[in-house]
Amino acid sequence: MEPDTRNILLSVQYNGSGFAGWQRQPTVRTVQAELEDVLASMVQHPVTLRATSRTDAGVHARAMPAHFTTHRDIPVRGFVRGMNSLLPQDVAILDGAEKPLDWSARNASVAKTYCYRYLVSPTRSPLLAPTSWYVGDRPLDTVAMSAAGSLMLGLHDFSAFRASGCDASTPLRHLHQVDLQVDLETGMHTLVVVGNAFLRNMVRLIAGTLYEVGQGKRTSEEISVLLSNPEPRPARFTAPACGLTLEQVHFEGYPRLGK
Amino acid sequence: MEPDTRNILLSVQYNGSGFAGWQRQPTVRTVQAELEDVLASMVQHPVTLRATSRTDAGVHARAMPAHFTTHRDIPVRGFVRGMNSLLPQDVAILDGAEKPLDWSARNASVAKTYCYRYLVSPTRSPLLAPTSWYVGDRPLDTVAMSAAGSLMLGLHDFSAFRASGCDASTPLRHLHQVDLQVDLETGMHTLVVVGNAFLRNMVRLIAGTLYEVGQGKRTSEEISVLLSNPEPRPARFTAPACGLTLEQVHFEGYPRLGK
Repeated sequence: MEPDTRNILLSVQYNGSGFAGWQRQPTVRTVQAELEDVLASMVQHPVTLRATSRTDAGVHARAMPAHFTTHRDIPVRGFVRGMNSLLPQDVAILDGAEKPLDWSARNASVAKTYCYRYLVSPTRSPLLAPTSWYVGDRPLDTVAMSAAGSLMLGLHDFSAFRASGCDASTPLRHLHQVDLQVDLETGMHTLVVVGNAFLRNMVRLIAGTLYEVGQGKRTSEEISVLLSNPEPRPARFTAPACGLTLEQVHFEGYPRLGK
Repeated sequence: MEPDTRNILLSVQYNGSGFAGWQRQPTVRTVQAELEDVLASMVQHPVTLRATSRTDAGVHARAMPAHFTTHRDIPVRGFVRGMNSLLPQDVAILDGAEKPLDWSARNASVAKTYCYRYLVSPTRSPLLAPTSWYVGDRPLDTVAMSAAGSLMLGLHDFSAFRASGCDASTPLRHLHQVDLQVDLETGMHTLVVVGNAFLRNMVRLIAGTLYEVGQGKRTSEEISVLLSNPEPRPARFTAPACGLTLEQVHFEGYPRLGK
């Protein structure tokens, strides 16, 4: 078998509704398996696709970077076009780029942007539903949510916002942006979270906790306590996966894929 | 059987991707049948739902007004909540209102707003796909499209923008607005068309013809000819259903459902 001579980076978009998450698993439909199977049919050898991170079942991605190695001389544009013609409608390749063989998307990632979307409306919406969590029509206290969110900015111990199975070596994470944008016409509330990296379920735990703040069930003071002394009262409410989208992964020097 | 004493108007939203259109037909899934079956199970008698218009297979609606009569004393809010809990995810009731028994949504409609969405992008997008038509990455001449669209404003003979099976008694229609809005970030081009009423396939024929203008295949002069003398060169390109959404139906004095 020939040694791999190329490292090809793809930017992948998917609607997570029909997937049991990114990572390949036996018996269930996953994004990684869908992509690897199509790639293997193109290059005629087994392919392992490496992403910057995994997404859980039901979580969406606007632009997930993932790369693979091969010795085949198919041009990058050929991979993008070929895969888009072979892939099902809920996943597509946005772009591709050639990388050095030792380049790793996971190591090169310097920050990520996630959005969590809450739909506040008298009724659920079939047209807005696929990427949002329908929370009913009770107004959220967006001023309190924004204030609580801004307490999370900077470097903090996010142990309180970490799923039990998380195996990260440190709970310290640096958040660059926590903003809430409200579309008054549709009732869509979009929480934008940018950070250097994230613990397992961290964005959904932040989204769930800020939702509790928006409902008046938690105060900003409790958020401060969670950030400074997480043990006694950890965040317990993980907002549903359907509202979460990995929007962008930011690489130093790769603004095109990071955009 | 008791006579019907109430006329109940519902505002219906649906993603048309999974439906063979609005109108009930044997053997295929339609919005009308889905709603009537759920209503019949609630009121325990057969229900006929009357909409302001029909939508074709694959066309979406943000707010389609439709009404039915019954003698049951279920409150309007009860219908909205009950139906939303019984209906599948791709259709929902946004709102409801009580109307006089002789009120008809079709007769009361004074104008309608449709949007046709073209996605201009290097690749298709699983997150934007459900309500748009992916046209590839060749830029559209939006200045020419807007100029050609503005020629359609006012009262015209739209015989050239009418499907062959259309049985309307007159081809005269009055367009109040034909605007093209472009989202530079995503590449979504949204054609907004507001008119007093529409011929069969009229919006999709307008969208298809303006797309040809955007590609440089047709000129504004040809649009003038189509509007003044439709016979020799009728519009032939019907843009795909997936890009079309019935956004609003406007009633005199009912701004709430018309909004």
